[in-house]
Amino acid sequence: MSARKIRLLLLSILPVVSVLGAEPTPKKSPTMAEVLATSKPADWRMLDPENTIYLELTNGRVVIELAPAFAANHVANIKALVREHYFDGLAFLRSQDNYVVQWGDPDAEKPDKKRKILVAKATLPPEFDRALDSKLPFTRLPDGDVYAREVGFSEGLPVARDPKSKKMWLVHCYGMVGAGRDNPPDSGGGTELYVVIGQAPRHLDRNVTLVGRVVQGMELLSSMPRGTAAMGFYDKPEQRTPIKVIRVAADVPVEERSKLEVLRTDTPTFQALIESRRNRREEWFHFQAGNIELCNVPIPVREKR
Amino acid sequence: MSARKIRLLLLSILPVVSVLGAEPTPKKSPTMAEVLATSKPADWRMLDPENTIYLELTNGRVVIELAPAFAANHVANIKALVREHYFDGLAFLRSQDNYVVQWGDPDAEKPDKKRKILVAKATLPPEFDRALDSKLPFTRLPDGDVYAREVGFSEGLPVARDPKSKKMWLVHCYGMVGAGRDNPPDSGGGTELYVVIGQAPRHLDRNVTLVGRVVQGMELLSSMPRGTAAMGFYDKPEQRTPIKVIRVAADVPVEERSKLEVLRTDTPTFQALIESRRNRREEWFHFQAGNIELCNVPIPVREKR
Repeated sequence: MSARKIRLLLLSILPVVSVLGAEPTPKKSPTMAEVLATSKPADWRMLDPENTIYLELTNGRVVIELAPAFAANHVANIKALVREHYFDGLAFLRSQDNYVVQWGDPDAEKPDKKRKILVAKATLPPEFDRALDSKLPFTRLPDGDVYAREVGFSEGLPVARDPKSKKMWLVHCYGMVGAGRDNPPDSGGGTELYVVIGQAPRHLDRNVTLVGRVVQGMELLSSMPRGTAAMGFYDKPEQRTPIKVIRVAADVPVEERSKLEVLRTDTPTFQALIESRRNRREEWFHFQAGNIELCNVPIPVREKR
Repeated sequence: MSARKIRLLLLSILPVVSVLGAEPTPKKSPTMAEVLATSKPADWRMLDPENTIYLELTNGRVVIELAPAFAANHVANIKALVREHYFDGLAFLRSQDNYVVQWGDPDAEKPDKKRKILVAKATLPPEFDRALDSKLPFTRLPDGDVYAREVGFSEGLPVARDPKSKKMWLVHCYGMVGAGRDNPPDSGGGTELYVVIGQAPRHLDRNVTLVGRVVQGMELLSSMPRGTAAMGFYDKPEQRTPIKVIRVAADVPVEERSKLEVLRTDTPTFQALIESRRNRREEWFHFQAGNIELCNVPIPVREKR
């Protein structure tokens, strides 16, 4: 499919047949299943083991892809925390409905009991946004956004851009991972991390440093019982979900790694996927939205064949 | 607070102090907590027991407000199903991450085993949208929407309107309840109902009849273990969450009813609440979004005092 046809697909909010009227045989645009079935190996990428962490729970593994292009210092610090085993044996302390789950040290406020940090940093300056770099791949969505001038995907992550202020930043979609903080902007650093489990809390954009995205295992986080204390914190220690261990994938023996591929977001295939979700061709649909919101675009993941 | 000031608050995406510069003492707009603390009794409404149903699970009650103004026939049919005890002893069959939970008859496809319907209807014509009625209260949001020309709230429900086609319809925000159907538009009717538990699946708008909204107990639904079969259906019967009983609140002894009040959505107080969420004044926030998306506006509920 040529670049021009893809662009037409994306700009159109009418059924594609009417836009592509010059085609000899007008045909429907493909469904997502069809897009994926005809994808090429080069449409997929392996996760970089040096920027992937495994969060091991008693009932399974959560795979998180880190975002060094957007939060280089936080990512480096989280890897340092992981490698000094800071998180091992800690727990999920908070599960707030339609918002976030959060893990960290239950004794963080107790000077004599709290987990010691060896070489990593306890806090860091914020990385709420970064300079807009037009060399970073960016697949822009055509339908606008309530919160930002431009939105789209960069290297598998939901991103907003503002050409006026020349800034770009990660967006709080479902599954995004951020560094909790207190009131001062520089009070976070990665020792407490949260994951979005509900409607995208876009008011958090540029207020917290986002550090990555869950690519597998979200259901283990989103189905945790909700905490009943303020902000979804658990009342009792036994309600918390323990963390067995967190590891950088590169430190895990190759045969124990999750063999996952993620669909690239800088390809005609991904553009076709976006179109397949803007106008749903599956037989069940009677009304086609014609538009799509950033956080409704799926980023497919599969086991490496 | 005058209507004009409210309008200014809503139209502004700048801090309010600069817009209301003529004020003798420029002051910050209130936080949501402050808006609620100063609300009057008339800002709240009791649920109508005739249009409220209680879904009783083994671990608690889910309270659903029905939407007769938008789906009169489905609401009447669901109440008829409830009153003939159609749902009692059925179960949640499906829990799909970041999407929906769904309940119904596990044996619906087995002619000899399926639950009998006595007086209610098995299926109904769809109520995907309705004629735009400008007499229905409508608090319009000022920041636009990716999917619809106008969005806002009507009687506590998220609503989209299209002045061109003169239609209005309910929107798939978190907690909305809809009538599952097969491919034909008239194959639903209320025997299978689903609840949104993730990012608002707006592509479903106008494709399914929405019938109401969960006003209390969402956390009991959203934290159900996810099903591992296709579309989040459970593989094994024992994984399902059983439904003890569903009742119309009006049929429940008064002393057993949930004494809930919902914030009205057609008042200056609700407008102030919207503004408090567009520009977060809590000390934690360093960047104010200036805008809000329909499904990010909370609709407060409280125990009747």
